[in-house]
Amino acid sequence: MVQHGGSGVLASVQDDFPRWYQDVLEKAQLADNGPVRGTMVIRPYAYAIWEGMQADVDARIKRTGAENVYLPLFIPESYLEREAEHVEGFSPELAVVTHAGGKELTEPVVVRPTSETVFGALMAKWVQSHRDLPMLLNQWANVVRWELRPRLFLRTTEFLWQEGHTAHATAADAAAYARRIHLEVYRDFLQDTLAIPVLVGVKSPRERFAGAVNTMTCEAMMGDGKALQMATSHELGQNFARAFDIGYTDASGTVQSCWTTSWGSSTRMMGGLIMSHGDQAGLRVPPRIAPIQAVVVAVKDDERTASAASAVADELSEAGVRVRLDVRGTPGFGRRIVEWELKGVPLRIEVGPRDLDAQQVTLARRHVMGKTTVPLDRLSAAIPPLLEEMQSEMLAQARERLAARTTDVETVAEAIAAASTGFARIPYAALGETGEDELAAKAVTVRCLQTEDGGLPAGADQDGLVAIVARSY
Amino acid sequence: MVQHGGSGVLASVQDDFPRWYQDVLEKAQLADNGPVRGTMVIRPYAYAIWEGMQADVDARIKRTGAENVYLPLFIPESYLEREAEHVEGFSPELAVVTHAGGKELTEPVVVRPTSETVFGALMAKWVQSHRDLPMLLNQWANVVRWELRPRLFLRTTEFLWQEGHTAHATAADAAAYARRIHLEVYRDFLQDTLAIPVLVGVKSPRERFAGAVNTMTCEAMMGDGKALQMATSHELGQNFARAFDIGYTDASGTVQSCWTTSWGSSTRMMGGLIMSHGDQAGLRVPPRIAPIQAVVVAVKDDERTASAASAVADELSEAGVRVRLDVRGTPGFGRRIVEWELKGVPLRIEVGPRDLDAQQVTLARRHVMGKTTVPLDRLSAAIPPLLEEMQSEMLAQARERLAARTTDVETVAEAIAAASTGFARIPYAALGETGEDELAAKAVTVRCLQTEDGGLPAGADQDGLVAIVARSY
Repeated sequence: MVQHGGSGVLASVQDDFPRWYQDVLEKAQLADNGPVRGTMVIRPYAYAIWEGMQADVDARIKRTGAENVYLPLFIPESYLEREAEHVEGFSPELAVVTHAGGKELTEPVVVRPTSETVFGALMAKWVQSHRDLPMLLNQWANVVRWELRPRLFLRTTEFLWQEGHTAHATAADAAAYARRIHLEVYRDFLQDTLAIPVLVGVKSPRERFAGAVNTMTCEAMMGDGKALQMATSHELGQNFARAFDIGYTDASGTVQSCWTTSWGSSTRMMGGLIMSHGDQAGLRVPPRIAPIQAVVVAVKDDERTASAASAVADELSEAGVRVRLDVRGTPGFGRRIVEWELKGVPLRIEVGPRDLDAQQVTLARRHVMGKTTVPLDRLSAAIPPLLEEMQSEMLAQARERLAARTTDVETVAEAIAAASTGFARIPYAALGETGEDELAAKAVTVRCLQTEDGGLPAGADQDGLVAIVARSY
Repeated sequence: MVQHGGSGVLASVQDDFPRWYQDVLEKAQLADNGPVRGTMVIRPYAYAIWEGMQADVDARIKRTGAENVYLPLFIPESYLEREAEHVEGFSPELAVVTHAGGKELTEPVVVRPTSETVFGALMAKWVQSHRDLPMLLNQWANVVRWELRPRLFLRTTEFLWQEGHTAHATAADAAAYARRIHLEVYRDFLQDTLAIPVLVGVKSPRERFAGAVNTMTCEAMMGDGKALQMATSHELGQNFARAFDIGYTDASGTVQSCWTTSWGSSTRMMGGLIMSHGDQAGLRVPPRIAPIQAVVVAVKDDERTASAASAVADELSEAGVRVRLDVRGTPGFGRRIVEWELKGVPLRIEVGPRDLDAQQVTLARRHVMGKTTVPLDRLSAAIPPLLEEMQSEMLAQARERLAARTTDVETVAEAIAAASTGFARIPYAALGETGEDELAAKAVTVRCLQTEDGGLPAGADQDGLVAIVARSY
């Protein structure tokens, strides 16, 4: 039997991160493999976290003025051939419906790998005059890309995502809007809600999205020091508008081609959440996104304890805390604690006979595994600010790891060495013409380019950029 | 050219209801055909209404204790063969993926027509002990059923829906839960939020869902007197649990088969909303579901009017009203009014110079097309209760039509005659053994069976039931 030095429940987060990840998915009841290879079942607890992500990202998207639509799952094969780089990028991953309604179809239809081409065709129809611009659209949907090496949440044949597509009258307007989405929607959501510090930057031309003139990315560091791309935003110039004939009549009556953008984030963020914050005891969910912020656990299976626990839960629920009450007789207290730690519930409130005698409850904060007590009459005043404090502390913890495992280097060889445990920062110019090839040979890539002070540059051709280099998922 | 006696914008709602429906979808920018036959593009305004429906239904479902999950789009063909009645019902409608990732698949996969079989397989795994029961699950997703005669929102190849699946320890618990979903989720949502009065009843054995022992339905009357099935809830007895081996160990250690239920509602409700409330000027959206409850329209294109209109919009928005400000210079006032009437915005608030001189605004209520005025300083106090009043009035209007177009009859011939303009109520016993065949020959069906006083019976075999008979969508 394999010894993995873990908690007994999970493989060791230090020694076998991939297996630890699989274990967390299973033991915390987050996800399961679907019956068709590469597909995924998202279980209630993980889906509740995803619903929280969706609601938060959606509200941020709407604040920028974009509206949601729903486009069809099926796309005619011919649509994908309209943008050459597009079809090349996707064709090996397509799932094709050849039979339907009991017959063979005359033209096979593709299950959308993205709705980009359909957005293109519709925008060409919907945009006529400069008064129709900007046109700001977004969609929440499932998409399919056949995966040969699937990994739950990170790379699955089907995944859930949002894709935004916008058309603008000028390059400047398109660039400003894409930048706003990237910073105010993605970066702020990831940092403020998921407590995941992200590096915002642009992709190098080699790593850029096919057809884009500029790709912005949010890169996060996982628990094993590898990078995960959490969201990307693309300026598509006029390439896409020309391929799809998205034009408008300007104020002087001249027909102009639009400037378009696209941007997306997906259930991959669930993988990022688990791998950013998880530890040897399981998942750790930041309070703002937690479906259960506090679980009230009765320490003893008797009437007095249960009714006191229930009163505590009611009071906190009244105070706006998302609470779960656990007064189960079985399994025993110890096993129930392990369950809630696995699920990463931020705050566990233990109610036991001795606590009650002292007019208090015991608090166990998941992010530090430390215990304190709080008087019963201070509950509603103390818990909500405590949750906010924990949220900040989780972000600070993740920031510390990011800083500790990021190394400034000068050469490609040093960058490769640093990437075995974390991120390397190297002057982009130092990579020269062959640097990205040399990195690639060691399964290391340029994750993004930043300004010297860690800012988001306007594009990859700006002078003095710094490359963030890492292994990645 | 065809004269259709309509408003000039829409075909006549009286004379050509199907064409009127198509016109509303197009002119109010609700939906479009997708590029693959039978598929649908849901445009921003309609999608915003759907989001409102989803949020409301979802909150009601969660209140019953059910949790959301997400199951894969793709199902192995073999899964569908496990429940004989199930595969028979769906096989002519299936879309089949035969090629993926550039290769032919060894086992073709089906695009889910429902996730029923996957829920079955998962519940068999997740339910072990009586402590796991009841297991209450729900999913929001897209499903595909190849349609030969598609009609936007009513019958489309792909549609959005929720499907609930639950497993219980006893028949009584399953029946009580399905009934609760049917009344507290579906009926109450349709009546209280969509202002659509529905007849709740059970399906006759002929109309019952394949494999169910009892099917409950909510039937609504559309503007042309035809019925639309808005939602259904099924008791599946132990049939489904046996086919999928969903069993549990009871307190005494004996393995028992579960009792299961399923229940669903879909984007078809959008069609029902349009066809229930629409009139010659377009859609009419009840205030509680309206994405825009009030539009503030500047009557003149000048500074003073625009800034007053903007202040009105801000004030109402502060008061919790979902407001849109319309201070566009073009198109002219008349065309803008037609637009907002087409979209069915409940309340139009006109701000013009004469109104401002009199320290008031003009209110146009969409559901009665009547105008009144309200003093500027009464706005936040007056509008929210006015919207609630309008909500009640729309439900009352729909109830009146339902009552006026429902006829009590004694014979099948009378029922068929009454169904040409509305619903017929006939003692179920009066249909005898051949009644449903005779109705079917005239494209008329038993929509549901109710108790004498219009209540929801426990099942179709109860004595003294009344059949509601109608043509339907």
